[in-house]
Amino acid sequence: MRLLEERILSEGKNLGNGILKVDGFINHQVDPILMDACGRELARRFKDIGATKILTAEISGIAPALTTGMHLRLPVVYARKHKPVTMPDQVFLTLTPSHTKGRIVELIVSPEYLSGGERVLIIDDFLASGATILGLARLAQTAGAEVVGIGTLIEKTFEGGREALSRLNVPIEALARIRSMDNDHIIFEEDPVETAG
Amino acid sequence: MRLLEERILSEGKNLGNGILKVDGFINHQVDPILMDACGRELARRFKDIGATKILTAEISGIAPALTTGMHLRLPVVYARKHKPVTMPDQVFLTLTPSHTKGRIVELIVSPEYLSGGERVLIIDDFLASGATILGLARLAQTAGAEVVGIGTLIEKTFEGGREALSRLNVPIEALARIRSMDNDHIIFEEDPVETAG
Repeated sequence: MRLLEERILSEGKNLGNGILKVDGFINHQVDPILMDACGRELARRFKDIGATKILTAEISGIAPALTTGMHLRLPVVYARKHKPVTMPDQVFLTLTPSHTKGRIVELIVSPEYLSGGERVLIIDDFLASGATILGLARLAQTAGAEVVGIGTLIEKTFEGGREALSRLNVPIEALARIRSMDNDHIIFEEDPVETAG
Repeated sequence: MRLLEERILSEGKNLGNGILKVDGFINHQVDPILMDACGRELARRFKDIGATKILTAEISGIAPALTTGMHLRLPVVYARKHKPVTMPDQVFLTLTPSHTKGRIVELIVSPEYLSGGERVLIIDDFLASGATILGLARLAQTAGAEVVGIGTLIEKTFEGGREALSRLNVPIEALARIRSMDNDHIIFEEDPVETAG
């Protein structure tokens, strides 16, 4: 998606160790107009998969999941990383390594909002190693729900997340796919849809 | 706002100790269509205050702040509660008590995205004691920015937050104002705009 790629080129910063800083429009300050455009595009790509619910992880997944949910008219559940007092005692919980935090985090969903028979579209800001998304998929499967698609704003293809997710056997979409970002020179994968057009 | 009040009456749960559970449409599962309507209404109420930026706190403030930002076409900054690796060493930081967490939490904003001269509209999900919003106001003022309005989805008027915020001397709007919620019987304040109409 050209709009997102241009923004990454103009404002994204490679902090080293595989970390791309996009705090100016996604992760700390959010551009709602850009986020709405991203949600519209993700909704377009997933309009035919019959999803009944969107699942994401707090914190940075909330914005793209919300705008995708607006355009698909689907409820959005965000997995919590700390169990709030409003949650029942029995929850779905899984552990996942956080690259940016350098430790294991919990992903927690209440059974009230994720149940058998749901068709779950997972949305997140980044697809890197795929660990967070695999954690969300485990939560969905534990609930008896079926994962039917995975969408992210940015994919770092050099971290192998897409391969790690391949056993889920669902369509995976990323709006900006970064092949390399050495020396602050960000190179995107060629988009097969755009090159065909 | 009738739509939000009806949703609170049908799905909200009083958990005691002043805690209203709205996890089914705001705090864990989000209804994007409702959230968009709330954002549109908050944007309508604040369209003339000349805000240049929206400030909120993760996690539950993100959704209403984002939709308000979409309708006002303003960037949204969400204060972090843990400093991510992408943030610079020097940050704006304040401490605030969290009622639902029962402890003190940090609110952190990078100086990259909050600076002098900004006119800040603070948006959050709840106005209860006002502690979180006062914390956000301190961050804005520390940055040299001016707070020009405060908007929330739900206000619990019996917790006195509006009085605590009065010294900021800015317009305060809440889309659903709860006067009492004893014995799971939720009573709203009468809306002066609606009763006048």
